[in-house]
Amino acid sequence: MAMDQNELKKTAAIKAAEFVEDGMIVGLGTGSTVTFLVEAIAKRVQEEGLHITGVATSKRTGKQAKSLGIPMKTIDEVPHVDLTIDGADEVDKNFQGIKGGGAAHAFEKVVATSSTKNIWIVDETKLVDTLGKFPLPLEVIPYGSTKVFDRLQNEGLNPKFRLNDDGERVKTHSDNYVIDLYMGHIDHPHLLANWLISQVGLLEHGLFLDIVNTVVVGTQDGPKILEAKRA
Amino acid sequence: MAMDQNELKKTAAIKAAEFVEDGMIVGLGTGSTVTFLVEAIAKRVQEEGLHITGVATSKRTGKQAKSLGIPMKTIDEVPHVDLTIDGADEVDKNFQGIKGGGAAHAFEKVVATSSTKNIWIVDETKLVDTLGKFPLPLEVIPYGSTKVFDRLQNEGLNPKFRLNDDGERVKTHSDNYVIDLYMGHIDHPHLLANWLISQVGLLEHGLFLDIVNTVVVGTQDGPKILEAKRA
Repeated sequence: MAMDQNELKKTAAIKAAEFVEDGMIVGLGTGSTVTFLVEAIAKRVQEEGLHITGVATSKRTGKQAKSLGIPMKTIDEVPHVDLTIDGADEVDKNFQGIKGGGAAHAFEKVVATSSTKNIWIVDETKLVDTLGKFPLPLEVIPYGSTKVFDRLQNEGLNPKFRLNDDGERVKTHSDNYVIDLYMGHIDHPHLLANWLISQVGLLEHGLFLDIVNTVVVGTQDGPKILEAKRA
Repeated sequence: MAMDQNELKKTAAIKAAEFVEDGMIVGLGTGSTVTFLVEAIAKRVQEEGLHITGVATSKRTGKQAKSLGIPMKTIDEVPHVDLTIDGADEVDKNFQGIKGGGAAHAFEKVVATSSTKNIWIVDETKLVDTLGKFPLPLEVIPYGSTKVFDRLQNEGLNPKFRLNDDGERVKTHSDNYVIDLYMGHIDHPHLLANWLISQVGLLEHGLFLDIVNTVVVGTQDGPKILEAKRA
């Protein structure tokens, strides 16, 4: 019987948890796949007596990890991070990705860029030839956000403010707004990233470029480890 | 008798207020010089019956302007800004500047970059050959700010968290921290700006490059209007 998406995520998460080594400071991402990961790491801590320190990218992940007995510190309390494992919303064949479906991409990127190694866990539906079918999330400060929005629209990037179920603008942990770009396809991710970071009032975009060299993919044939060969 | 710094600022502010025209949407900066500017503009509104709309870059400026009878809107309520007048902490001979001594530079930059024309008002002590004697302010999100700090230090940029009189970290309107770079001299402002905006967790830096073409300088011989000749 075929595994459903959650089972695929879970097998990949268990596989990725094997990359954690004794003594490591481990960054823990955010999202449904990471929930499985935290369970799998907590199991190794209990059963194998691994000594690790976790660093959470969201309150939710931090709460779960702590409740399962993983010693936690904040990103500002640790000197560095050895390994960060996180989900991704899309990963292309060059191991470039989009994150931020959960509106936590700014904190996730802070931890990822402070981490010696990064691994993503995805089910096989997240692998794409070209990024951009998944809307690209941006985090923008509220002050002047309509001006940022206008510039994105003038550039043809099809922006929409992300709304919650009550029709109000979603707020991030930092009390900022999220604008999603519905581009369909992102042909030049580095050019887009460079342009986006130069926009005043934009804190962080969801393009994660040249950050990850290992992706664990949940497939019907079991979890597969993909390693990037960078030019 | 020589004018003191405040008198120099005031004469420059009164001169700059003459650039405001009937019907304009006017961005109003932040700081001691802008306090004189708002007074001068309010006087023109009262005496000449100018119809303008003000856009404030800080609560303090907004409150003063409103109390003096200038109709105010937020940056997100206006379609654009015609003219923004602000102070600056340093201006070099190419009309590049440093702002953010008042920790309001992110909002100030949002308004400046949404404005058709920008004018700075300074007293003559602010004119420098090379930027950087004034510490360069950065606004960073608290989450992971020590990691940003470490990177700045590793790059030799001499960062210090800005503290208030109680020794606590200063917080901006957006609840972020301010890190000042004590560089002494900034030889390559565009290179520095490009590197800074690529730092994850950094919202905005205080380099204002290629934004201003007109500077009104308060001098002992009266206010002087400098116009940039850009390459």
